[in-house]
Amino acid sequence: MSRGPTPYRRRESDSAIPPPQPMHPGELRQDPLTGRWVAITAGRAARPEAFMHEQGAPRGPLGCPFCVGNEHMTPPEVWADREEGSAPDSPGWRVRVVPNKFPAFAGPDAPPGHGLYRAAPTAGAHEVVIHGTDHEATLAEQPAGEVARVLAAWGRRLAAWHDADLGSVTVIVNQGRLAGASLEHPHSQVFVTAARPALVEAELARLTRQDCVACAMLNKERGGDRVVADADGLLAICPWASSLPFEALLLPEEHLARFGHGGPGDAATAAALGGLLRRLAGATGPRTPYNLVLHTAPPGVGDFHWHLHLFPRLTTFGGFELASGIVINVVDPDQAAAAMRAAPPGVSGS
Amino acid sequence: MSRGPTPYRRRESDSAIPPPQPMHPGELRQDPLTGRWVAITAGRAARPEAFMHEQGAPRGPLGCPFCVGNEHMTPPEVWADREEGSAPDSPGWRVRVVPNKFPAFAGPDAPPGHGLYRAAPTAGAHEVVIHGTDHEATLAEQPAGEVARVLAAWGRRLAAWHDADLGSVTVIVNQGRLAGASLEHPHSQVFVTAARPALVEAELARLTRQDCVACAMLNKERGGDRVVADADGLLAICPWASSLPFEALLLPEEHLARFGHGGPGDAATAAALGGLLRRLAGATGPRTPYNLVLHTAPPGVGDFHWHLHLFPRLTTFGGFELASGIVINVVDPDQAAAAMRAAPPGVSGS
Repeated sequence: MSRGPTPYRRRESDSAIPPPQPMHPGELRQDPLTGRWVAITAGRAARPEAFMHEQGAPRGPLGCPFCVGNEHMTPPEVWADREEGSAPDSPGWRVRVVPNKFPAFAGPDAPPGHGLYRAAPTAGAHEVVIHGTDHEATLAEQPAGEVARVLAAWGRRLAAWHDADLGSVTVIVNQGRLAGASLEHPHSQVFVTAARPALVEAELARLTRQDCVACAMLNKERGGDRVVADADGLLAICPWASSLPFEALLLPEEHLARFGHGGPGDAATAAALGGLLRRLAGATGPRTPYNLVLHTAPPGVGDFHWHLHLFPRLTTFGGFELASGIVINVVDPDQAAAAMRAAPPGVSGS
Repeated sequence: MSRGPTPYRRRESDSAIPPPQPMHPGELRQDPLTGRWVAITAGRAARPEAFMHEQGAPRGPLGCPFCVGNEHMTPPEVWADREEGSAPDSPGWRVRVVPNKFPAFAGPDAPPGHGLYRAAPTAGAHEVVIHGTDHEATLAEQPAGEVARVLAAWGRRLAAWHDADLGSVTVIVNQGRLAGASLEHPHSQVFVTAARPALVEAELARLTRQDCVACAMLNKERGGDRVVADADGLLAICPWASSLPFEALLLPEEHLARFGHGGPGDAATAAALGGLLRRLAGATGPRTPYNLVLHTAPPGVGDFHWHLHLFPRLTTFGGFELASGIVINVVDPDQAAAAMRAAPPGVSGS
């Protein structure tokens, strides 16, 4: 048993995390065949967009729970960037954060059971950051000032969760249906998990100050063929071991544990991120679906090197990936970086 | 470093594997951030179907390299189930095995390097098993006798590679574009890797005779709510820790290391597999894309419990899965099993 991966580690303490979501939406279950953990959250199947083949044409703003005027369609907001004097859960917001109506993680933690079938609650929280009032504008299309507001919202929510006893807080973006987006109005999701996923644990072990591979990669890559952009204390590269075509990594040159805590400010990071996304669009097409993943120091962890993964979804996994865990990438990262460097980083028309 | 997963282990010996594919199509690279291995096989991007957004309408039999009469479009066959007297690489075959024209793995092994960026050749082999002469008929639509011929071909190729010094031999099926199929004519792929992927290693450690979790699952599941079918020495279940909606596992009741070596014969396995695929179609729709993964004892390994994973592709991974390695499954396996049990296993019209 000891030779397999350990994809999920619990924190030592088991004190409860804060409300407000009291029930568990599902169960984390450890696959006896591999030792990997999966989250079974059957309640989410109630979402009309749960299955790809049930997704029809884009629905547009009408009936969109993230559009202005439809604030009553979401749970009450937990934070918003608002015009002075405007009331919560009413128009006047620029960026709005609400609990996910169909959370994958919620409620207090409990230790996993033992035996052949080990399970634990999907404890934690699950929030949505609505990027703006425009139903269509993606991060690549928003002005840098608006993107900076989104990043500020990420920082606010990360700070809000940072003192809780939690295993991980991750911000992700699913842009486009092939990237898993279930609602088209651009938004991020904040995943808060009571236990720490093994992939987060693996990065934590490798990105400590004494022996940080992110710092080592910065030194090795800077000025080289895999650099996409390098400005304002932020380096964007196509990683040498990219798992996906046109995959990119945005990281601060400083060894900084927490996103939004020192180092490049939201304006600089927004400019770098927007530029990177527009280069992806220029190199691969204007509506390439992608995921963003922000890895930052989990609550209680003081040493890490935060970074932002960009995972374009131009290809799909096949059986070999599911059989082996090894992803086959058909594009040389050096060539991906060259194409993205050559693409314009500016907003079209600006 | 030691806390992260070890997704890729090399075998002790490094003697060369047999030809015929002399060159390496790419590089296995270890991601310094996570320790995971990826395969960069940039030559495969030359395939016209490498990118999803470049896939137009199905092309049909005209110009299909797997159709009868087009045998010259593939590399020379390595084995075929043929009418007596018919010549290799000419019509008269029922099932045909050829090297992949754009192999992901090929050529002899070499040890990985050291340092920040560790790489090794994508050593091994990569074959295609063409399921039949019908350009359209999937395994669910073929008569059981034809499916049995496909399984016999799997057994022949597994036996052919079994005495080589290799880390793994896996047979997979990508059915449908959303499951990664690049050519529509139904076929399997045999992936032969010199090194052993960590996921294969993880299963090997858990499925030894002394403490086999597959045997334990058989005992626990038999007669229960997650059983889809149970006949002729083969049990089909929706696993308790299913990572995907309507995922299923087909396994022999006997603890058998090697597929096709004792236990249920090809006819019984073909009937069980065909029935399972038709139940999936009945429960979820006639053209649900899926992957099949056959895990069987690698060369040189005598103790294992072979099994066949069925991974339907009704949903797609999002950013959380890429961030954490934890897959969110929105369908309760108990409900999936009930729906598949209720669906008819027979060939329509038969």
